[in-house]
Amino acid sequence: MAERLRAAVLGATGSVGQRFVQLLDRHPWFEVAALTGSDRTVGQSYGQGCRWVLAESMPDWARDLPILPSDPGLLRDQANVQIVFSALQADIAKAIEPDMARSGLAVFSNASSFRRDPTVPLLLPEVNPEHAALIDAQRQQYGWPGLIATNPNCTSTGLTVALKALQDAFGLRRVFAVSLQALSGAGYPGVPSLDIIDNVIPYIGGEEEKVEWEPRKMLGALENNQITLAPVAISAHTNRVAVTDGHTVCASIELERPADLALVHQALADYQAPALSRDLPSAPLPVILLRPEADRPQPRLDRNTGLGMTTVVGRLRPDPLFHLRLVVLSHNTIRGAAGGSIYNAELLVNMGYVK
Amino acid sequence: MAERLRAAVLGATGSVGQRFVQLLDRHPWFEVAALTGSDRTVGQSYGQGCRWVLAESMPDWARDLPILPSDPGLLRDQANVQIVFSALQADIAKAIEPDMARSGLAVFSNASSFRRDPTVPLLLPEVNPEHAALIDAQRQQYGWPGLIATNPNCTSTGLTVALKALQDAFGLRRVFAVSLQALSGAGYPGVPSLDIIDNVIPYIGGEEEKVEWEPRKMLGALENNQITLAPVAISAHTNRVAVTDGHTVCASIELERPADLALVHQALADYQAPALSRDLPSAPLPVILLRPEADRPQPRLDRNTGLGMTTVVGRLRPDPLFHLRLVVLSHNTIRGAAGGSIYNAELLVNMGYVK
Amino acid sequence: MAERLRAAVLGATGSVGQRFVQLLDRHPWFEVAALTGSDRTVGQSYGQGCRWVLAESMPDWARDLPILPSDPGLLRDQANVQIVFSALQADIAKAIEPDMARSGLAVFSNASSFRRDPTVPLLLPEVNPEHAALIDAQRQQYGWPGLIATNPNCTSTGLTVALKALQDAFGLRRVFAVSLQALSGAGYPGVPSLDIIDNVIPYIGGEEEKVEWEPRKMLGALENNQITLAPVAISAHTNRVAVTDGHTVCASIELERPADLALVHQALADYQAPALSRDLPSAPLPVILLRPEADRPQPRLDRNTGLGMTTVVGRLRPDPLFHLRLVVLSHNTIRGAAGGSIYNAELLVNMGYVK
Amino acid sequence: MAERLRAAVLGATGSVGQRFVQLLDRHPWFEVAALTGSDRTVGQSYGQGCRWVLAESMPDWARDLPILPSDPGLLRDQANVQIVFSALQADIAKAIEPDMARSGLAVFSNASSFRRDPTVPLLLPEVNPEHAALIDAQRQQYGWPGLIATNPNCTSTGLTVALKALQDAFGLRRVFAVSLQALSGAGYPGVPSLDIIDNVIPYIGGEEEKVEWEPRKMLGALENNQITLAPVAISAHTNRVAVTDGHTVCASIELERPADLALVHQALADYQAPALSRDLPSAPLPVILLRPEADRPQPRLDRNTGLGMTTVVGRLRPDPLFHLRLVVLSHNTIRGAAGGSIYNAELLVNMGYVK
Repeated sequence: MAERLRAAVLGATGSVGQRFVQLLDRHPWFEVAALTGSDRTVGQSYGQGCRWVLAESMPDWARDLPILPSDPGLLRDQANVQIVFSALQADIAKAIEPDMARSGLAVFSNASSFRRDPTVPLLLPEVNPEHAALIDAQRQQYGWPGLIATNPNCTSTGLTVALKALQDAFGLRRVFAVSLQALSGAGYPGVPSLDIIDNVIPYIGGEEEKVEWEPRKMLGALENNQITLAPVAISAHTNRVAVTDGHTVCASIELERPADLALVHQALADYQAPALSRDLPSAPLPVILLRPEADRPQPRLDRNTGLGMTTVVGRLRPDPLFHLRLVVLSHNTIRGAAGGSIYNAELLVNMGYVK
Repeated sequence: MAERLRAAVLGATGSVGQRFVQLLDRHPWFEVAALTGSDRTVGQSYGQGCRWVLAESMPDWARDLPILPSDPGLLRDQANVQIVFSALQADIAKAIEPDMARSGLAVFSNASSFRRDPTVPLLLPEVNPEHAALIDAQRQQYGWPGLIATNPNCTSTGLTVALKALQDAFGLRRVFAVSLQALSGAGYPGVPSLDIIDNVIPYIGGEEEKVEWEPRKMLGALENNQITLAPVAISAHTNRVAVTDGHTVCASIELERPADLALVHQALADYQAPALSRDLPSAPLPVILLRPEADRPQPRLDRNTGLGMTTVVGRLRPDPLFHLRLVVLSHNTIRGAAGGSIYNAELLVNMGYVK
Repeated sequence: MAERLRAAVLGATGSVGQRFVQLLDRHPWFEVAALTGSDRTVGQSYGQGCRWVLAESMPDWARDLPILPSDPGLLRDQANVQIVFSALQADIAKAIEPDMARSGLAVFSNASSFRRDPTVPLLLPEVNPEHAALIDAQRQQYGWPGLIATNPNCTSTGLTVALKALQDAFGLRRVFAVSLQALSGAGYPGVPSLDIIDNVIPYIGGEEEKVEWEPRKMLGALENNQITLAPVAISAHTNRVAVTDGHTVCASIELERPADLALVHQALADYQAPALSRDLPSAPLPVILLRPEADRPQPRLDRNTGLGMTTVVGRLRPDPLFHLRLVVLSHNTIRGAAGGSIYNAELLVNMGYVK
Repeated sequence: MAERLRAAVLGATGSVGQRFVQLLDRHPWFEVAALTGSDRTVGQSYGQGCRWVLAESMPDWARDLPILPSDPGLLRDQANVQIVFSALQADIAKAIEPDMARSGLAVFSNASSFRRDPTVPLLLPEVNPEHAALIDAQRQQYGWPGLIATNPNCTSTGLTVALKALQDAFGLRRVFAVSLQALSGAGYPGVPSLDIIDNVIPYIGGEEEKVEWEPRKMLGALENNQITLAPVAISAHTNRVAVTDGHTVCASIELERPADLALVHQALADYQAPALSRDLPSAPLPVILLRPEADRPQPRLDRNTGLGMTTVVGRLRPDPLFHLRLVVLSHNTIRGAAGGSIYNAELLVNMGYVK
């Protein structure tokens, strides 16, 4: 690919927006040509207007880019952008992203606004790349020259990758999932420090509904440009803990076809991304890392596995009520947010939906 | 009670031992007459030999007590002790506690060593005070003039209190329980700081087995001096988080007789300790506090409810797989350890087992 | 005092406002008759409008009080209030507090707005109660039937108490002071958790200027209704750390008349509040607690000494450059904020300035 | 360098030992041929015997290396090692390191045991590479075919780099330094979590003495194979805070020749390592990074600057007592420990002391 596609990051000053900027630094296919922000910051340079909260430093090229408004015409005609990565909040995304698609832009959104739209693919390329074909239905439905593709909620992400390996091998019936979620998932400023030092918050607004539904769409079957939700029932409890990055999920799983643990171990460890998504630049290596230690995965030690794209699984053991128990860890702002959207964009470029 | 019973704290320098000392300060029925410690500290005063880690300050009377070895004869004959509160580690407790009982001492143990002995009561006075009658079987079995009574593991404690209210009203079938446990549960020095800052440890050795079994004994029926385990099946995932005190448990519960949430709410809020244990000095007031907020209980805000003896329940809501979901919080070193042992001692004094 | 004085808390929903409410619960002299809040919360009950962040629970009487606007006429005429405790932000306090004083209310302010006014006393009753006489100058200057009295910045508080004991005994020349400040000092929501987990912020806006100036006013001499700043020079570095409550200050001190450490120790340990303030309800007992351990004071263990009103000093040792080094700890929202204002009010009631 | 020198890491299972292993992975000049550990772990493979606590994963080659005893003959003759990196505790280092040097090994020690020996260089290559010539005096004194070279205490490290730039430009008189130190500086298991969550420990045993003396040796002049301590006087307060990695130091500095801040800024920003050490593989790039933001440096955001070898300085401003104030941040286990020893080894190889 001689020339890189020109991309914009919408909502670039927030914590997920910053992660997009950091991960797109020297991306082989995409070049960040524009950054957008709220009215308060528009007109400033990104270096001035953005309170950078990542440990990795801000790329030099980003420092001097002006913060633009999230305007489709401006992005397409003046910045010559083809792709937009959206880190917008759900309510704003709901209003703006369709305009972007209507203007011909390919929107890769981290927002929840359109995940439930039957014509919008909810994608984890290592899980359901074939769902990208929903874009055909989307174009038929809305007539957009562009498109909207979404990635799931950060807690659903790692869980769904692990469930996919099990679904393929044994089928799935029921899942209990309890999360211990990182602070960066709430954005910046997000959770006040007084709420989380020496504390746990056993509630995250709207999160449990997402974790109970989104995996069913991703694990569902695509037929005639429609997705049938997977027949797995999920119960989720979501908690916030004093961790910067990395969501941990404890899960108990009932299989369709029970199997002994050695086979389950093998199914997880051997899981491969489908050919469509296996060799893309952001493809996780490995897709799933199964840790043998009694006390892993741990967010501080394991979140950066596979550059933050790998799903780390551990503590595989039998469950007294269902069939098996395990712990899943996934980097919530990399695999679970910005890195996921970028991987989605790579998939749709590869499949020819973005030109 | 004109004169107080003389008590010793075994393993008084550890974190649970300290909590015993703090809670027994000015206790109306018990007077601390002796403190024991490891070989390393024996001979020093408690003020010298104990690295005090509680925010409440060390009582003045404790500061000058000598640290003694955990020797039954010494405690009974020289210190004139009748009651011992044991904060010993399980392996040491296993060796020493029977000697204490054999010497005529009444042992109230926080250790796990004898919880599974069919003649040792595993007690939460607000749940199963009638199980104290097992002491008769114990004396018959071992011929001890003294006794051993135990309190459950700290994570089982709050969960069992909440389950008891539900069992009484609706019966219990299955429970998923995922804990987010405080650091003080691991003792002192316990968890290294590098293991828990910006981290979660999804494993606590031996804990899940305890949480899956102990509630069944406490919720079981006593007939003919034998306990039949309650027919409830439990799956536990236990995690360590960066919280000083207060164990949080997320639970999904299947009832024997499903009921709507308003009735469940009422059963929890109205739960009363049995008459035997209701008016003891350490009885929790209330037994269960049901918080209405969406994001409570939280350990930092709720652990000291009812002087740390109350079980705090919140987030009562339906469960997609079982019948209901809730969050339980209990202070692990007060209700779940030292305070629980003291409450047990009050019960057995009240029932005439300790004279 | 048969009947209690009626008081209002201004800005009662913030973290310092909550501390006022908690500390005034069952106060022997003051009764909270009104609570004020921002436009967003006015009209709701305090229980609804206030996101309570203290571990102590909200007093029942507060739960049902309506949140009022911070209007002097309303407070004086309808709520019959004589005293207001102000937890307002500096800019709002600047506008509102003079109106309150003009309306006849006695304002005890935690805000920085009027600390530098030459006719406004900046008070720590155990340090400079005689400065309360500035109220005469204030009334002459402004003609207010009420008054404004202020307490210092929370970091200046503990430091000034320790310096006062040294000034009295040995005189003071120069002080280096480096703070490690708690999160509650920044209010609520205050410091975002992502900024402080696994981190230190070596900057607190405006804080160093306050710590370098306020002690000089409090340690200054009052003559002819004017205060001459104490001739001590201070250099301050202020830092935010991951502590909920309790400011720690490391100080190196140059004395006017060098003395050996035993005498310094004695001067600190023996320091007494002046007779005017010694027996007030909120007077710290002791004023200064000198800890002998090598590694104290520590915020988690020592902040509640003397119900949070005591200044805890430790690590007294020689300094290679100046004369001595020590560490000072003070509870920033009790002694350093709400508790300090209440203590000030007690002083002025006692001196007859509030009737 | 066609062939790499064979190196051993002594005390390889501890937290600094692990950092050596991680930093030596793919080092261009050194190849790790042996790892040593305590009696408890000898005989196991490193993968078995080492509880790895770094976020970077254990290199594959290390996993299978056997843990050896710290025996000079074994290392030299069987493992064919020329260089040893010592992460031993001070008392063990004191006994073993001379034996290593006597056996012909070049010891690069992170221990404090020999830092004050007048013939042992205490080195920061970007500060005082010429002090390496002390090795000649050392060989004359002890007759060792090998050598011992040391790096300073982790808190002295960053401070000394900043002071060197100021000393060169303006001379130094007096320094106040207050540290906020990371947990990894105390090793593993190190600081118990209950001691540091929601807390500060204002004491680190032996640390203040080191910070007050070590910079004076490194900033001292070498004449006739002897070092004259630099005539700067230092007062240190050292504190432990809840940070995993990265020591922060607040310093007030009195210069010999006062200068305005713009010049000071320039002196810090322009500081270059001497030619001897400037181009070595571990040389920091830049040596000093001067951050312009009001609230930097911060450990979580800045500790990895220059791969953890750069000294980050910020908050440069005038001081009310001395001339200037600033904040210094340095990665304590990279620049301040393992990375520093490796940089020292590179220097001595480059100067021909290790062959």
